[in-house]
Amino acid sequence: MKRTILIALALLALLANAHAQVKSIAERLGYPRDAKLLIVHADDLGMAHSVNIATMKALATGLVNSGSIMVPCPWLAEIATYARANPQADLGLHLTLTSEWTNFRWGPVSPKDRVSSLLDKDGYFYLTETDAAAHADPKQVELEILAQIEKARALGIQPTHLDSHMGTLYQNKALFEVLLRVARSQKLPVRVARDWVANADFLQGTLNGNDVYVDRVLTITPDVAPQDWAKFYSDALRNLEPGVTEVVIHLAYDDAEMQGATFNHPNWGAAWRQRDLEFFTSEAFRKVLQENQIKLVTWRELGKLIK
Amino acid sequence: MKRTILIALALLALLANAHAQVKSIAERLGYPRDAKLLIVHADDLGMAHSVNIATMKALATGLVNSGSIMVPCPWLAEIATYARANPQADLGLHLTLTSEWTNFRWGPVSPKDRVSSLLDKDGYFYLTETDAAAHADPKQVELEILAQIEKARALGIQPTHLDSHMGTLYQNKALFEVLLRVARSQKLPVRVARDWVANADFLQGTLNGNDVYVDRVLTITPDVAPQDWAKFYSDALRNLEPGVTEVVIHLAYDDAEMQGATFNHPNWGAAWRQRDLEFFTSEAFRKVLQENQIKLVTWRELGKLIK
Repeated sequence: MKRTILIALALLALLANAHAQVKSIAERLGYPRDAKLLIVHADDLGMAHSVNIATMKALATGLVNSGSIMVPCPWLAEIATYARANPQADLGLHLTLTSEWTNFRWGPVSPKDRVSSLLDKDGYFYLTETDAAAHADPKQVELEILAQIEKARALGIQPTHLDSHMGTLYQNKALFEVLLRVARSQKLPVRVARDWVANADFLQGTLNGNDVYVDRVLTITPDVAPQDWAKFYSDALRNLEPGVTEVVIHLAYDDAEMQGATFNHPNWGAAWRQRDLEFFTSEAFRKVLQENQIKLVTWRELGKLIK
Repeated sequence: MKRTILIALALLALLANAHAQVKSIAERLGYPRDAKLLIVHADDLGMAHSVNIATMKALATGLVNSGSIMVPCPWLAEIATYARANPQADLGLHLTLTSEWTNFRWGPVSPKDRVSSLLDKDGYFYLTETDAAAHADPKQVELEILAQIEKARALGIQPTHLDSHMGTLYQNKALFEVLLRVARSQKLPVRVARDWVANADFLQGTLNGNDVYVDRVLTITPDVAPQDWAKFYSDALRNLEPGVTEVVIHLAYDDAEMQGATFNHPNWGAAWRQRDLEFFTSEAFRKVLQENQIKLVTWRELGKLIK
């Protein structure tokens, strides 16, 4: 009899666990399973003054409701001041291991001699995520990203989530495991999309039921012509599937500073970023959200699901 | 007889030495003693894109003929590209131990744990030259400025001279001795004005006859009203004394990047720098040079006097 009860309890536990696992992230957030939820997320805060002022303007509209900060970059102090003044803002850390603009460079928060595998011959982070991943010693990666988190907190930034600039930490399993271990130790959600898991074997083996991730990430690509910018986003939002989507955008003004940084790189360049700024602060965007019953959610809400 | 010849030779040597010492820097350059010689020197290259593009434009006019580069700053790579493409340009290093803009910061070239006396609590150089000098361990200063010179050379910059951003290395004897020792070891002239020597005891004891320095440094000050900018410089040039004068200027555009950097610091701020740019690329400046027989010289020419 005692043994039968134990078996029944074990079965109940298994069923409960199975049920928890199939709950969608929308349901875990308390929404119906068919709710359309959106995080409107601006990357690259702290990189440049142009990025900072464009993003702060966009956050003020409420239409852009999340962003992440590059701690090693020269304009960090400006966005840290904003973060301290706006503690409710949904700001995470855009963990940075690349320095991609030819004429405008940055390097690590850690002492350079302790993270030499992360640095190019000029002492900056590598220009590309593939070079960064190819050279990076995972122990040094962990040291550096912990230093970035520590520095952010020391400046009064209370990050709500983590992600990885240019996806460097998603380049291979060893780097992703560092990101996930650090995120779990900090009890912070990390940018992962459910549909990435199907495409990267190493994600299947590393994520567990307590990790919180979005259903998909939506981002514009260089094949979209400038005149089709608003149409691309509007169409994508009209056709949005239920669940949590993170639309990852890049905001700045098409001004001298941004043109100087991106002069040889129109993709994610100055004009690209101003187009993103214009769409995501427009009445057209507000209207498409309303008409399609899309509700904005934040990484802060997702992070509360972490036990 | 032999003894008399020896005494005569010794006296001749003494006289020759005395004569060499009283030769003015203008005479050592091959000009008459009453020649009016001017170095038009833009500081802070590499600091910001706005500074770089303004200075490159001014150098192209030939009216600004010298400048110095801040190696730790984020836009170094842009000015290094210019230096490689213009090897005749008179570019020195603006050795940097301060990071003075609240929202836009930089730190050392050396590993941070080896130059901790140079860093504030956020891991950047101190905001002010007085804080920097008060905390700086001269051994760490030497390590850092040698690292800045080494990095500049690695990027293809062949510096013609050295000076010190915000004058940090002139704040006390120990720091000045580091600057002078490094400059002598590199056989580079360093920004010192003959009239400073009279006002700083420690300069008298450290400089020797082989050091090359200018007769005076001319720089505008915050008490000059914006509308009097051109008048200040024109008057100063009309009254220029003979010898070598270095006019130290700060060039940039009054644009969003520069306004963001200097938002709480109008002195040496964005509008200040655009006023400098406008005067020193103007026909009025060209005319005042011609009318007053002022000839431009470079630090490269001064450096050739070093044995």
